[in-house]
Amino acid sequence: MTEVATVRRSRITPEREAELYSAVLDLLREVGYDALTMDAVAARTRSSKATLYRQWGGKPELVAKAVRHSKPGGSLSDIDTGSLRGDLHSLTLRSDDCQMEQNSALMRGLAMAVHGNPDLLKAFKEHLIEPEMAEFKRVLQRAVDRGEVRADNPAADYMMHMMIGAFAARTLLDEQPPTQAFLLSYIDAVVLPALGVPTS
Amino acid sequence: MTEVATVRRSRITPEREAELYSAVLDLLREVGYDALTMDAVAARTRSSKATLYRQWGGKPELVAKAVRHSKPGGSLSDIDTGSLRGDLHSLTLRSDDCQMEQNSALMRGLAMAVHGNPDLLKAFKEHLIEPEMAEFKRVLQRAVDRGEVRADNPAADYMMHMMIGAFAARTLLDEQPPTQAFLLSYIDAVVLPALGVPTS
Repeated sequence: MTEVATVRRSRITPEREAELYSAVLDLLREVGYDALTMDAVAARTRSSKATLYRQWGGKPELVAKAVRHSKPGGSLSDIDTGSLRGDLHSLTLRSDDCQMEQNSALMRGLAMAVHGNPDLLKAFKEHLIEPEMAEFKRVLQRAVDRGEVRADNPAADYMMHMMIGAFAARTLLDEQPPTQAFLLSYIDAVVLPALGVPTS
Repeated sequence: MTEVATVRRSRITPEREAELYSAVLDLLREVGYDALTMDAVAARTRSSKATLYRQWGGKPELVAKAVRHSKPGGSLSDIDTGSLRGDLHSLTLRSDDCQMEQNSALMRGLAMAVHGNPDLLKAFKEHLIEPEMAEFKRVLQRAVDRGEVRADNPAADYMMHMMIGAFAARTLLDEQPPTQAFLLSYIDAVVLPALGVPTS
């Protein structure tokens, strides 16, 4: 079985696979999960539907693999500015406004679909949310170790809620994608004061 | 034209109209905007599709009217506890956990759809977001008037981002609907400290 699966997979080159995943994510952002059809994927990528079904099994599997394939850009390991404010600002500046707009559209497109689709939810959490959370936790832990943030500060548990919430609320309330300028301002106005860190 | 429209509308009693809107909102929460069909509304409400189209014109109009019809519960005018913490807690306690779960599902169902559908976005903002914002602004203004919050506190501009963000992030990160307990804890840990208000 494994061999057959391997043989099947090898029919598609990694470049072609990346191209397909990229088209799936584009469609997700444009129309959302429910309205995304295998027909549209086939048309956009000039594949046959039969190939898509043979290779991925179905829409949830294809979308989950595409999300899984989209790695959040860069590693944080090299960010260590010596202050929580510096680290959070650097984290924010890793994604340019265009990438943030794309992530925002992707999040919107998936938010409804992950509900009631465990495979998709798993891919979404494992490959988009959890790597982000791990990075923010590392940054926060260093701030605690430096004595910048008290270990028992109640806002520490809500680090990700503050950041993801700002991201989501910006789209919803202001009808515009989150930008670097907005997130830097939010970090200074909300996140750092909640954590008891002076911003000047 | 107006008279004809009035006559048409009068074929449906207000009770029947409310019943239809409630069914539309239920369907929205269950399947989202894209997957919601006029067929499903007709089946759920035992109406004919012809009646639905004659009465509302189409899906965006029907959904916009349904959202417009769902008033956020109760008026705030009677909430005035004398402290920002008390007011924010009272605001939160107005919706029980079941209502919050419903609002969270509704928000999820609409988040994708409002994008690219100006009528729906307008109904969503006018009838769900803006009344909430006005209430939070009133509460905040009273806190500024009392001297509890500085007028130039930068977090004041993000009051709604903090609250809506907590609501949205809870669903996304913790895979559970926001509860009263969660929001009260978030208000104490994040919102009040960001606004410079001591929580004890």
